[in-house]
Amino acid sequence: MTEHRPLDPPASTTIATIANDVGVSIATVSKVLNGRTDVAPDTRARVEASLDRHRYQRRGRKPSGDGRIDLVFHEFDVGWAMEILRGVEAVTSEAGIRLAVSQLDGAHRPPARWLDVLLTDRPLGVLFVLCHLAEAQQMHLRRQGIPFVVVDTDSATSAAVPTVGSNNWNGGLLATRHLLELGHRRIALISGPPDVLCSRARAAGFQSAHDEAGVAVDRELVRYGGFLATAGHDHGLRLLRRPDRPTAIFAGSDIQAMGVLRAARQCGLRVPEDLSVIGYDNLPVSAWTDPALTTINQPLRDMAGIATQMLLGLARGIEPATSRIDLVTELVVRESTAPPAHLR
Amino acid sequence: MTEHRPLDPPASTTIATIANDVGVSIATVSKVLNGRTDVAPDTRARVEASLDRHRYQRRGRKPSGDGRIDLVFHEFDVGWAMEILRGVEAVTSEAGIRLAVSQLDGAHRPPARWLDVLLTDRPLGVLFVLCHLAEAQQMHLRRQGIPFVVVDTDSATSAAVPTVGSNNWNGGLLATRHLLELGHRRIALISGPPDVLCSRARAAGFQSAHDEAGVAVDRELVRYGGFLATAGHDHGLRLLRRPDRPTAIFAGSDIQAMGVLRAARQCGLRVPEDLSVIGYDNLPVSAWTDPALTTINQPLRDMAGIATQMLLGLARGIEPATSRIDLVTELVVRESTAPPAHLR
Repeated sequence: MTEHRPLDPPASTTIATIANDVGVSIATVSKVLNGRTDVAPDTRARVEASLDRHRYQRRGRKPSGDGRIDLVFHEFDVGWAMEILRGVEAVTSEAGIRLAVSQLDGAHRPPARWLDVLLTDRPLGVLFVLCHLAEAQQMHLRRQGIPFVVVDTDSATSAAVPTVGSNNWNGGLLATRHLLELGHRRIALISGPPDVLCSRARAAGFQSAHDEAGVAVDRELVRYGGFLATAGHDHGLRLLRRPDRPTAIFAGSDIQAMGVLRAARQCGLRVPEDLSVIGYDNLPVSAWTDPALTTINQPLRDMAGIATQMLLGLARGIEPATSRIDLVTELVVRESTAPPAHLR
Repeated sequence: MTEHRPLDPPASTTIATIANDVGVSIATVSKVLNGRTDVAPDTRARVEASLDRHRYQRRGRKPSGDGRIDLVFHEFDVGWAMEILRGVEAVTSEAGIRLAVSQLDGAHRPPARWLDVLLTDRPLGVLFVLCHLAEAQQMHLRRQGIPFVVVDTDSATSAAVPTVGSNNWNGGLLATRHLLELGHRRIALISGPPDVLCSRARAAGFQSAHDEAGVAVDRELVRYGGFLATAGHDHGLRLLRRPDRPTAIFAGSDIQAMGVLRAARQCGLRVPEDLSVIGYDNLPVSAWTDPALTTINQPLRDMAGIATQMLLGLARGIEPATSRIDLVTELVVRESTAPPAHLR
């Protein structure tokens, strides 16, 4: 299956190949590989360029860390991050491996300094949640033989990066089909930010379900926002105050759906009698809102557990059978959806 | 202030003192201190007994770890654990210190094996959340010069253990006063498990507020349960189906209060018109329930941040000014409380 691993170096690339290519000593190449600072910047740049050109990857090196993996969150958001942490910890504690946790304050790429700290203090591997490395940072980790896996709902990551996600298009399709089957014809979508691919995948599923049913989507009812409750509340109020208000709203997260429930109440609308609401994620809290949320189950703990197992395998030199796993999303019907008033 | 540090050894206790006391070589005492296994069990036991008797503590040893602290949770419960994690991470990331996370699956004491793993891989310090060490484990960590701090709502921890908590009695008092001032006279309490001291402290605050107002507490309305939504739901249904049902319920957590809200709805009671409900914790979700919860703010992030700063100080050899800090709890009034129906 080497054709699926385009970033692997030809087997013949050694430190000597690089030294020869750049015209420096093997010791100099070794210094660059080990992150030592006693190499002239210009020389370092030429060695790094050659390493990249030759797709050099340190092979068969035993992990020299302390039996730890690093879990890096985009941010500690409400609900989501705890589910991921539970899934990862179940695997690491079973394996007797220490788990270090950090977050990037909402950034999607770690700062340069972060990689320096990581390399002075080698983990067995790194798990990224909703964040990822720049191409140069990826090359750097590969050269050091530190494997990494991404947990992401974004299904467009490179095939070279092992990634565990879930099927967002399918989630969008299932939620929208459920509403259409109940008889709704004016359905609003509040998705996450448009620059996050999972938002667009869900919106595409929303469109596909309409196409199947031969129902036109009113573009006025498709909104993008954050995943927090405030976004659901703000968009919910604007949608529900329209004279041609929707009879159903499909939200981007369970927390966002709680914002929609509040907006409905402020507009004097009962859920589900006057308005159907669907969440996304199936967090524990979604069973306890009033009314309990119909939602799409995103198997966050399983995603995290599988990604951790993949990472521990890579740390032992075992390539995963496939580099991209999407877990199945499912509809969970509770109390917040019903046929629209005119059909009852 | 040596009188406040009863576990400090007399300055003259050295390894030689211990060796002399037990009648073994200095090398043997050193092996026991370093956790080596090549010491006869009987000899080890005698050395450890002497170390304990002399309250031996390794002094002035520089932390030899990798700049990491260990954060140990009782369990990853809903909401609470994430707030603590946020508070700790804010301090460790600022200090450039790695944060390792683990949980004890609901146990309140780490298993014996846990300490062995910790000692082979020294952290700068350990932060325990709602869990703690057995006395022998505490002595062991002290001898190794690894400081630890406890984040706990339980205000009865030993003065020798640095602990950050919050004032639960005050929380119970404030919540109950608020309900009494609104005119409620039949108020129910659903607290946490009775073997958790914070539950009893809040119940004592509940009683004190009644005493202040000259209102008798009906013992039938005082319940103990878990902190989860199901406990709130179960107790809520049982309380609200009584012919002499309470007009207000003070719950043990915001999540538990969500269970009470559901029970009220199932009994056809409106909140706050027919029933007032107060939560505890002031988690982010409490602002988004329907109705938004009146609750007691427990400053979880601040508690975690202060405990972490205390721990990092101890790792640098700085004794905290006081070993027990309780942060203030405050009433947050939202929509779930109102005067009882007969007063409106």
